[in-house]
Amino acid sequence: MSVADDLMKSSCEWLRGKGEACEIVMSSRTRLARNIQGFPFPHRISKTDAEEVITIAESALKQSPCFKGSFFLRQRELTLLDRQFLLERHLISREHAGARGPVAACVTRNEIAGVMILEEDHLRIQVIESGLNLTEAWRVIDGIDSSLESVLSYAFHPSLGYLTACPTNVGTGLRASCMMHLPALVMTKQAAKILQAISKLNLAARGMYGEGTEATGNLFQISNQMTLGQSEAEILDSLERVIRQIIEHEKEARQVLVTKRKDKLEDQIWRALGALKTARLISSKETMSLLSLVRLGMDLGLIAQLERTKLNELFMKIQPSHLQKVTGKSLSSSERDFERAKLLRQELNSVSFS
Amino acid sequence: MSVADDLMKSSCEWLRGKGEACEIVMSSRTRLARNIQGFPFPHRISKTDAEEVITIAESALKQSPCFKGSFFLRQRELTLLDRQFLLERHLISREHAGARGPVAACVTRNEIAGVMILEEDHLRIQVIESGLNLTEAWRVIDGIDSSLESVLSYAFHPSLGYLTACPTNVGTGLRASCMMHLPALVMTKQAAKILQAISKLNLAARGMYGEGTEATGNLFQISNQMTLGQSEAEILDSLERVIRQIIEHEKEARQVLVTKRKDKLEDQIWRALGALKTARLISSKETMSLLSLVRLGMDLGLIAQLERTKLNELFMKIQPSHLQKVTGKSLSSSERDFERAKLLRQELNSVSFS
Repeated sequence: MSVADDLMKSSCEWLRGKGEACEIVMSSRTRLARNIQGFPFPHRISKTDAEEVITIAESALKQSPCFKGSFFLRQRELTLLDRQFLLERHLISREHAGARGPVAACVTRNEIAGVMILEEDHLRIQVIESGLNLTEAWRVIDGIDSSLESVLSYAFHPSLGYLTACPTNVGTGLRASCMMHLPALVMTKQAAKILQAISKLNLAARGMYGEGTEATGNLFQISNQMTLGQSEAEILDSLERVIRQIIEHEKEARQVLVTKRKDKLEDQIWRALGALKTARLISSKETMSLLSLVRLGMDLGLIAQLERTKLNELFMKIQPSHLQKVTGKSLSSSERDFERAKLLRQELNSVSFS
Repeated sequence: MSVADDLMKSSCEWLRGKGEACEIVMSSRTRLARNIQGFPFPHRISKTDAEEVITIAESALKQSPCFKGSFFLRQRELTLLDRQFLLERHLISREHAGARGPVAACVTRNEIAGVMILEEDHLRIQVIESGLNLTEAWRVIDGIDSSLESVLSYAFHPSLGYLTACPTNVGTGLRASCMMHLPALVMTKQAAKILQAISKLNLAARGMYGEGTEATGNLFQISNQMTLGQSEAEILDSLERVIRQIIEHEKEARQVLVTKRKDKLEDQIWRALGALKTARLISSKETMSLLSLVRLGMDLGLIAQLERTKLNELFMKIQPSHLQKVTGKSLSSSERDFERAKLLRQELNSVSFS
């Protein structure tokens, strides 16, 4: 029984669909980049030093109250499928999942907090909360950071701040982001314009799986780009202000759709549910697009018999590695399309067309 | 209360989905072109003569046993919507529906037999039967023809045969056709090749609504082109032989789909049912394509809770004029798409996804 199996039994806390504006902001995430004094950055580290960093980190994490009872995962103990599975659950990055050298990760049982060891930096701490809750995501990560700092010597420069492998992270080492569901802005063709405006504010918009991924399912991850020259509070404040503006834009766009294109909108939403309930072969990309429409239908009060948690979880459960964990076997792309359709029919069985 | 309302209450006998090979051959049709001696052909006829032809025809039809209790419809008593409605029921042609001069039509209550008066010829008699049943369609029309000929003087030439307005109909004046549902031949991309081969045999393939209409819903009307130089029996024999070959090709193509592309096929069929049960806006063209897939699903034993008659009737009920007759009001194209979707949801309400 792998850790992945354990994780799969419970659901990620941050997918619960709770918290402020949770119909538009799926989750809020903070992450801190930290390095341990006296060791080269991961891209130049020796295998011996890497092993030592892992040991030091493990010992520090064991002393941190937040990580009590958490899973400590060494890369070599994980299969490729398990690593992909952790990636799909946003517990490790694509780079970390593909790393060759000795690396590790630590994750709490509720999956709210995690640490990647020897990703781009020695430590990449992250906290994910449900809904718009950057305050709590910051409070928790700040607590973790303090507890770790009490036992670790971080690489720190009095005028630059925390030192990191990539200069874009120097300073606070903080990246904060919100995963936003923006179907109406996409449908009314305003998304591109708004996301372009965001980049001028030094914020970035990416797909569900971070850098270089497409915004499937109308899910956008909006994050700060600057870590230097601003305090943590300023970074979080300016991000939250923009997030709140985007929420308003999305709400307005939904109102426009409901008043001006009601029939077309309802047509798209119900057909999406129809396709999810009937398909025998379906790709993850198409599934995400259809789930996005069903989620919008739920927000608009059209689709009533579905729980938000269940729907949020489906965005993750239909991913390739999750499907393979569920079926317990390695699946080709077309086999996954078949199993994905089967899973969707089961999960949506009780949701009827009204 | 118009005749159209009366007709709508009952269903066309030929849509019943009975008879040989009815899963592939929806219906078999015969028609005879006849003209009354002593009157110019319709395109050159005066209004007075036209009225006289109608009176003569009406009197003759009243004496024909087959047309006992039938509807006699004068164009001027029909609204444009009623004429479109009769067109959609295959009771009159597009040209007849749009005719300006005095024209008329006669149709039996079960809609098996009908006569257009002053279409291209003075009389265009037709008989439609369910399934592959050219023999019965011929037997009935031959009886009608004999009964009319006993009271009318047909324009007839001893060596040419029956004279008609267009030389392509001279001779027997007989056109026979079958409406075939060929989804598997379309899906396996064999339809074009087969229909091309047909044209070399002096047969024509057209869409559901005859000449110049597209083959929506994978429905093809296969008919003879020659009326001269062959006896009625030869015309019917050679058409039936080809129809039987096409049936075999379609069956083989279905077998190929079931054995080699089962998942993809079932995916298309169930999704089609899903779309029909959930759409809020749907065009007649899309509906026909989806109904075609559902019909195939029924033939393959996938979709069980639907009666063939009901499904066959849907191909007609979703047409523009039928929708307007049902709702009792004039509808724009987008209003029709809305009402069509509503009708489909009602009609398919009891059909579940297995």
